[in-house]
Amino acid sequence: MKKYQELTKKEIEAELSALCAEYEKYKEQNLKLDLSRGKPNSDQLDVCLPLLSESRSRERCFSENGVDCRNYGILDGIPEMKRLFSDMLGIKEEYILVGDNASLQLMYDTLSRAMLFGVVGSERPWCREEGLKWICVAPGYDRHFRITEVLGFELLTVPMTKDGPDMDMVEELVKDPKVKGIWCVPKYSNPTGNTYSDEVVRRLAKMQCAAPDFRIMWDNAYAVHDFSENGDELLNIFDEAEKYGTLDRIFYYTSTSKITFPGAGVAMMAASPANIKQITPYLGAQTIGYDKLNQLRHAQYFKNAEDVHAHMMKLAALIGKKFDITLEALEALDGLGIAEWTKPNGGYFVSLDLLPGCAKRVFELMKGAGVTLTSVGATFPYGIDPEDKNLRIAPTYPTDRELSLAMQILVLTVKIASLEKLA
Amino acid sequence: MKKYQELTKKEIEAELSALCAEYEKYKEQNLKLDLSRGKPNSDQLDVCLPLLSESRSRERCFSENGVDCRNYGILDGIPEMKRLFSDMLGIKEEYILVGDNASLQLMYDTLSRAMLFGVVGSERPWCREEGLKWICVAPGYDRHFRITEVLGFELLTVPMTKDGPDMDMVEELVKDPKVKGIWCVPKYSNPTGNTYSDEVVRRLAKMQCAAPDFRIMWDNAYAVHDFSENGDELLNIFDEAEKYGTLDRIFYYTSTSKITFPGAGVAMMAASPANIKQITPYLGAQTIGYDKLNQLRHAQYFKNAEDVHAHMMKLAALIGKKFDITLEALEALDGLGIAEWTKPNGGYFVSLDLLPGCAKRVFELMKGAGVTLTSVGATFPYGIDPEDKNLRIAPTYPTDRELSLAMQILVLTVKIASLEKLA
Repeated sequence: MKKYQELTKKEIEAELSALCAEYEKYKEQNLKLDLSRGKPNSDQLDVCLPLLSESRSRERCFSENGVDCRNYGILDGIPEMKRLFSDMLGIKEEYILVGDNASLQLMYDTLSRAMLFGVVGSERPWCREEGLKWICVAPGYDRHFRITEVLGFELLTVPMTKDGPDMDMVEELVKDPKVKGIWCVPKYSNPTGNTYSDEVVRRLAKMQCAAPDFRIMWDNAYAVHDFSENGDELLNIFDEAEKYGTLDRIFYYTSTSKITFPGAGVAMMAASPANIKQITPYLGAQTIGYDKLNQLRHAQYFKNAEDVHAHMMKLAALIGKKFDITLEALEALDGLGIAEWTKPNGGYFVSLDLLPGCAKRVFELMKGAGVTLTSVGATFPYGIDPEDKNLRIAPTYPTDRELSLAMQILVLTVKIASLEKLA
Repeated sequence: MKKYQELTKKEIEAELSALCAEYEKYKEQNLKLDLSRGKPNSDQLDVCLPLLSESRSRERCFSENGVDCRNYGILDGIPEMKRLFSDMLGIKEEYILVGDNASLQLMYDTLSRAMLFGVVGSERPWCREEGLKWICVAPGYDRHFRITEVLGFELLTVPMTKDGPDMDMVEELVKDPKVKGIWCVPKYSNPTGNTYSDEVVRRLAKMQCAAPDFRIMWDNAYAVHDFSENGDELLNIFDEAEKYGTLDRIFYYTSTSKITFPGAGVAMMAASPANIKQITPYLGAQTIGYDKLNQLRHAQYFKNAEDVHAHMMKLAALIGKKFDITLEALEALDGLGIAEWTKPNGGYFVSLDLLPGCAKRVFELMKGAGVTLTSVGATFPYGIDPEDKNLRIAPTYPTDRELSLAMQILVLTVKIASLEKLA
């Protein structure tokens, strides 16, 4: 197949005309498909149904240390749930704080507390400083960017490379004491699906930051979300930080949202003992304790990391198939010189880069055909993709059949938008 | 029985000596009893066990509007849970936001947001103002006071009367624009157990506040927690606020912590549409959504307010008995001129006022005999009871037998401390 850039004007017109005719046929079908949402579909959630199907007796309401999980008590999580996260992630139990369902809430709360009270190393609450800045690796996760935007930070964009954030640029930016932190999704990053290299993790742990209270928000959301036994390996950032004496720099998060239930899973944060100690009085003012029964449900269902892994391999069979459908469909764009995309070994997204100036047009064309895509720009700070070229594809929510159809239309609209641009 | 104040020095010495001998006998028993914690005991929690004993099928994971509660989605609560709270409290559904398990978290988050972003009517975020103050009705709930203390407010004490806060004083204080709000537990107040009179509710809704963004934190924690069919009646503050055009003044909270499970219930906040609208973007930055499965569990178990009421009457049989034991024991102090206490129609606490300067001594004596009381001063701002006279008795957690024994010792130590003071 010829590259589109090599087509003559006439060839472009002919091709465009044929594709538009095809597009009109899809339009007539009045479809309603959705590739926008990075959420599991109900079949996937059914794999975890046994977690909910226990008829719970009184005896099964007590944690291993004898606490009635129905009652008040325990701010930092029941021991068996801490142990499970510790086992899954290779993090010391004493670093771990178990929350409610949303790790996003733990992240927002961490930064909201930093604004009001500062963190270990702060000279004053962050809300008493002017002109604060935050590093956003883009394309990245819109809800991360949103938190720091709402809290009043200026968002600084650093490009994502195949190995993680462009570290030369990061190391340069952190020389500014107004730069207080960075958002990271280090494994199967949202939306690019790549995993930070060992070197990137090391440089993040090691770099000299001008702000004495610089923080890495390490959202390891897809820590165990491999499509096969050969998943990506991520270096343990706590181990690296310990070597370089920067342990307090790390706030670490994950949840079972995409292991068990997005709406009713268990989230956790992990941080150095000094950080946990600084946080605890504020956390104790905020809540009497998170939902322990749900922690117990999870810890009783998964005895250890191996149980979680076996479960994730079941999910991988379902999710992997959706990624296969997605990537097979994209092959039709191969060699046309108009698109590049990621082929992740895990996670929830495929990131698709088009010719500059084509993303919004594809979004509109898809909308016209009844397929919802993630808003263009959502993966960039302030919701603006400077080159208007990135699309985030979320293949997990539709059924296989719906996904297949939506991807055919996507390929078609990418071709149309590219030809229009080249014409 | 003679008043202790009328005893001669010799009579005091004789009585004290007899009581101390009795006290020594208790000490020898190496007891370990706890009257400090306003939490249900496990028998009480068992009444709700059917809520947990359902073996949940996939079909039972969907809310009435078709949302899979296991998945992402819905920030403000599932419709059936909003309706249940609406029915229980007489609040419009559109005012209601359903949270996770802890209403305390919703309260802290409300004020933390006010600090960072202000509220409807604010000229700037509260953290940009200096010298902010907050009204605390005392004795009151320590965790309320704690939130405003941590957030940097100066705490202003207003005495609790039998009808609620001393409103003359409140109306005077709110003439100061630095006074941003007041904590209220309007029904079966913690720890006094009394309920605000209609007049007090009206005056709170009606009063002229100098701060344009003054807020009443209305923690109706014991809204349905009557000991009998003849519970206290509380005026609906939203109805009153509507009459006086002060709807935005009210932030209203409750939870099922003491209906179902303190560790795994469902909390809610209610506020005017303008308040909800102002909050929503920040809430949307903080979380994708609270635990919907737990909302569903609750809404499926309680179809309406009548179901809740029937359930509360079952709990009342257990809790009422504990209050009977407590109040019967206290009768031994009747007529001695050394103590006054409340006789609530619901809630979780009895408030016991001693002779000034006796509370800490009783706490110490109780501790010596192996009985834990709530820390003296906990019910006052900054943890300081200016007269050192108030004790909060929490009868629900011990067994009936333990409670009976603890109360005998309490009566004894109150007598001892009072006689020591009078000697």
